[in-house]
Amino acid sequence: MMKEIVIKNISIGDELLIGQVINTNAAWLGEHLSSAGFQLDSALTIGDSERAILDAFNACMDADLVLVTGGLGPTADDITKPTVCKFFDTELVFCQAAYDNVVSLFKRRGFQMSERNRSQAMLPKACEYIPNTYGTAPCMWLEKKGVVFAFMPGVPFEMKGIFTDELLPRIKQRFHAVPYEKRVVMTTGIGESFLADKIKDWEEALPPFLSLAYLPQHGMVRLRLSGRHEDAVLLHETLDREIAKLTALIPEYIFAMQDQPIERTVFDLLINKGMTFASAESCTGGNIAHVITLIPGSSDVFKGTAVTYATPMKTKVLGVPAEVIEKHGVVSQEVVERMATGVRDLMEADFGVATTGVAGPSGGTEETPVGTVWIGVASSKGVVSKCFNFGKDRENVINRATIMAYEMLRQQLI
Amino acid sequence: MMKEIVIKNISIGDELLIGQVINTNAAWLGEHLSSAGFQLDSALTIGDSERAILDAFNACMDADLVLVTGGLGPTADDITKPTVCKFFDTELVFCQAAYDNVVSLFKRRGFQMSERNRSQAMLPKACEYIPNTYGTAPCMWLEKKGVVFAFMPGVPFEMKGIFTDELLPRIKQRFHAVPYEKRVVMTTGIGESFLADKIKDWEEALPPFLSLAYLPQHGMVRLRLSGRHEDAVLLHETLDREIAKLTALIPEYIFAMQDQPIERTVFDLLINKGMTFASAESCTGGNIAHVITLIPGSSDVFKGTAVTYATPMKTKVLGVPAEVIEKHGVVSQEVVERMATGVRDLMEADFGVATTGVAGPSGGTEETPVGTVWIGVASSKGVVSKCFNFGKDRENVINRATIMAYEMLRQQLI
Repeated sequence: MMKEIVIKNISIGDELLIGQVINTNAAWLGEHLSSAGFQLDSALTIGDSERAILDAFNACMDADLVLVTGGLGPTADDITKPTVCKFFDTELVFCQAAYDNVVSLFKRRGFQMSERNRSQAMLPKACEYIPNTYGTAPCMWLEKKGVVFAFMPGVPFEMKGIFTDELLPRIKQRFHAVPYEKRVVMTTGIGESFLADKIKDWEEALPPFLSLAYLPQHGMVRLRLSGRHEDAVLLHETLDREIAKLTALIPEYIFAMQDQPIERTVFDLLINKGMTFASAESCTGGNIAHVITLIPGSSDVFKGTAVTYATPMKTKVLGVPAEVIEKHGVVSQEVVERMATGVRDLMEADFGVATTGVAGPSGGTEETPVGTVWIGVASSKGVVSKCFNFGKDRENVINRATIMAYEMLRQQLI
Repeated sequence: MMKEIVIKNISIGDELLIGQVINTNAAWLGEHLSSAGFQLDSALTIGDSERAILDAFNACMDADLVLVTGGLGPTADDITKPTVCKFFDTELVFCQAAYDNVVSLFKRRGFQMSERNRSQAMLPKACEYIPNTYGTAPCMWLEKKGVVFAFMPGVPFEMKGIFTDELLPRIKQRFHAVPYEKRVVMTTGIGESFLADKIKDWEEALPPFLSLAYLPQHGMVRLRLSGRHEDAVLLHETLDREIAKLTALIPEYIFAMQDQPIERTVFDLLINKGMTFASAESCTGGNIAHVITLIPGSSDVFKGTAVTYATPMKTKVLGVPAEVIEKHGVVSQEVVERMATGVRDLMEADFGVATTGVAGPSGGTEETPVGTVWIGVASSKGVVSKCFNFGKDRENVINRATIMAYEMLRQQLI
């Protein structure tokens, strides 16, 4: 078995150190290196200074591969290129291919090109130029005493594009990858610790080359099972077998076998059945509508929403009788069921989904504390409704109520 | 003038290197150190291995202060504490104060405490224990050859709490801070490069101890003017003067003199005037409602929304005559104005805000390409409406249309 290679990441930019920008590049590189069968050893963020860059480069001379992002722009504070020349004992020379790339990019965008942009075509003589079709900053590949340094722009979408298109194929060619595979199982309706108890025996019996990660988010838990093994077939088959065991343990909590939000699962189910829904939202304030309309093509399954934030609107728009609100209170089973049937009728949909609750931080009573949410789903078969408490944080209440509304709708569709 | 101290950050955790979690702690620390008059020199992320931790500690012996986060939990992979003992040549001993903290935390949460949690009270003999009221992991302060190492848990909310309550006061006492101050000006309705052109002369004439950052986001640009100077009064007065000059240059684009979303500005204006609004949303899909309802107390100004995603609902719910839709098309000035007045009447609000457009990626025509959005605001004075093109990315179209809808409402309120 070949030895694992050591990969380090260096991010250059003052804006990262003063907290103006969160460094998302390091995590993205880590994830994509893992998926390709490599491992990120460390990630260092430094400012735009020659001293910091040279120190960081020197500290990486025990690595096999150094991935550097940032500091490659045309402005005065982008000092990576001159510092590269110092470290690699070379000089900046004009690169026609890089210049052509800058010219064509400006042409495509219809902008005037300035003399300053010409400086982007000046590259260290010792480097191999790698085309960047995503922007004007160059991508560069250099070696020193067997250590490969690859330089990418810091702008995340440029970095991601270049890494995927150009760098990763080169890295795979040069270094040995250990086959890696991951599976994601999406669960809802069960808390992380209860889930952990349910699958404890299975988790403890996993082969040592597989590992399980719990990734909890508002009202759901993503489970990621991943592993690395020289024998890719064995890895694949073991994952198949273990995922089958897992799904048999917790079938009622799984809403997707890939990384996607629950509204996507509901969208697919509705499309397959040729059915539609509409929502009547009080405490979720339009979020049920918002998340479904982020999906292109949602107009095929989603008729609309009525956010009746003001109580009289529940009567006027949704036809909830005022005496029902008066008698049971606006946060009640009776009201949520009338809202669900009301919006189903109003919008002429197959399903009506309704929420009413107290998102907080104020407005709670002893009987109906902050976090109380009634959710109802109406269909041709009648109305199903349930009461929940989603805690005290307003944003969390809204998000968890939204996810649970989709989960209740999904239950009606399976 | 005292010399600036060198502060380094080390984040420990495999989950950061495989991209399972994005390291937000480093940016947060960078921002809060800046605000307190310090500067973060570098931020290093490493995995849970003794070798990596020792290498990182040794590489920090040229710093004055090292802020370490993560790896302090009760599980086997949390190896920071034993490694600290190795580096500082000390041993783990039982700490009663740390134990009492763990016990009281479990009591407060009503959970059973396990033997494993007792291990959290074992601390390096050489360390000063700093109480963590946010969780069970300890906070520790150690010194080696004049370099201070401060250890915090990696969980962001615990780290933030401890840093603010306990560490920052100690750091301020021990090291010299250079007074820092920042101001944020929120603009909308003008692109970053046009804004830069308008304020170019002002920006170039700024005193060298002030710096301006452009932070663009969907449809708006945050301007941050910040500076550090030993003379805090001079710094404050200079900022006052420069901010006054800036606001005089671009008064029509500024919606807030502090870091807040535009719906917050609209919320405040409506509260002050005792007025309300409602929305009729097509392409924004409930997002106008969603963002306002994230603000506690929004029910005082927001009556509700009607997301009429299905075209017939525009007629049925909002009363837009079918022949108007037929004649002008659903994405048109006539329809958006009828939607705005329709929802204003329906919801009995002072203002009605409406959107209709093509969020994409499909559904565009030559006449009405993807990204086209009509926005209308109805009031007792009539309806104002405008047409925009917000580009091809669905999420971006939705976000920019939402911000512009609030901007148009704001214009009616000032």
